[in-house]
Amino acid sequence: MHNEELTIEGRNAVIEAFRSGKSIDRLFILDGCQDGPIKTILREAKKGDTILNFVKKERLDQLSNTGKHQGVIAYAAAYEYSEIEDMFALAEEKGEPPFLILLDNIEDPHNLGAIIRTANQAGAHGVIIPKRHAVGLTATVARTSAGALNYTPVAKVTNMANTIEQLKEKGIWFVCADMDGEVMYNLDLTGPIGLVIGNEGEGVGRLVKEKCDFVAKIPMKGDIDSLNASVAMGVLSYEIVRQRINKG
Amino acid sequence: MHNEELTIEGRNAVIEAFRSGKSIDRLFILDGCQDGPIKTILREAKKGDTILNFVKKERLDQLSNTGKHQGVIAYAAAYEYSEIEDMFALAEEKGEPPFLILLDNIEDPHNLGAIIRTANQAGAHGVIIPKRHAVGLTATVARTSAGALNYTPVAKVTNMANTIEQLKEKGIWFVCADMDGEVMYNLDLTGPIGLVIGNEGEGVGRLVKEKCDFVAKIPMKGDIDSLNASVAMGVLSYEIVRQRINKG
Repeated sequence: MHNEELTIEGRNAVIEAFRSGKSIDRLFILDGCQDGPIKTILREAKKGDTILNFVKKERLDQLSNTGKHQGVIAYAAAYEYSEIEDMFALAEEKGEPPFLILLDNIEDPHNLGAIIRTANQAGAHGVIIPKRHAVGLTATVARTSAGALNYTPVAKVTNMANTIEQLKEKGIWFVCADMDGEVMYNLDLTGPIGLVIGNEGEGVGRLVKEKCDFVAKIPMKGDIDSLNASVAMGVLSYEIVRQRINKG
Repeated sequence: MHNEELTIEGRNAVIEAFRSGKSIDRLFILDGCQDGPIKTILREAKKGDTILNFVKKERLDQLSNTGKHQGVIAYAAAYEYSEIEDMFALAEEKGEPPFLILLDNIEDPHNLGAIIRTANQAGAHGVIIPKRHAVGLTATVARTSAGALNYTPVAKVTNMANTIEQLKEKGIWFVCADMDGEVMYNLDLTGPIGLVIGNEGEGVGRLVKEKCDFVAKIPMKGDIDSLNASVAMGVLSYEIVRQRINKG
């Protein structure tokens, strides 16, 4: 995953990246390092959403592409993140009830890219991803999104369950996909909606699932466990599209 | 792509593979090579569906993992192929109208794997892929199918347009996905059906499209061209599932 992101190595380069306003997703810093430039980097990192990892020299050597990391390696997002407010603005501009996609820890950049692509085509107003334990907007994600990253806002949040709580207050209803839910065709998905898609292996987390208003089941006639996360997201998104067309 | 398949190098190993009944998808043979073992290999290859490529020594050296190709490298399928008859038998066994997926040159093994997975879950009775210009059943495809390759038959055909013609005589109706079609919700997709999905870049080929009874359009509200092939296949397959449930 990391090689596909924009890697920035060395103290000056990392300080420059922060100062130019780049979104730094993740920072690896030599454990115990306390000098001036490192302190500057830490100060910049704490202003934003950067995840800090203090690691041993061997780990940095292993991560380094250049062999000249000087105790610090940063991973920048290939694209800039948006705010959730941008998504509400987009919905309002189009005169549509908000339609948001929330991803509970998607790990595969191809899945994230395909999901952003489908979000764009299904008319969703944005994609919300968690800061931790998930893939960010890497170059692979951008490529797999087939250009959709230029149009569909993607925001990062610290705590998905809290975000759902806050968005409920704005009138959004939440539906997640799980096998123990109600068949999706029987749910009314036409209002302002947040569609929650779980992790590739684990599905939707318990805490997040408990916050959802509906649990939707995609009918599964097969011999295996589940659908690919980006396919499940596409099938559910288009059920929302269908219901909205029918109602409109 | 080739590294993900089972690579067999050297004359004896390749002859053994043929004799053990393995499906050899593709054979690279040193151009001009005419000795006994090579003639045996060519004879075996012509019994089946193997694609032959006569190449220069440099190409073989480049493809070789072992450095000991002896003028021949074979790529075996990670899984065995089925016949279209197996799919009809499966439909009959389940008492369902046949539901087949036909792939017009899918190139990405992750897409093929996800499509086989979705085919299994949506209750399709099989997936038909072309022999040439497309990815076969590689190890990556098997992994991405999440086990579905063990249940959903996959057959290879020489000419997709001819196969469609033959299947029409067995009462199958064909629908392909394209932007100039009728919105999928307005089509009757409840009968015996073959869903045709086009290549990632080019869509469905002209010849194949002309053979189709319906052209289905997935509503696209976005700013970009199309959906990922495996997502489009999922959305269309589940429209078929929905219509069949509604009718049933």
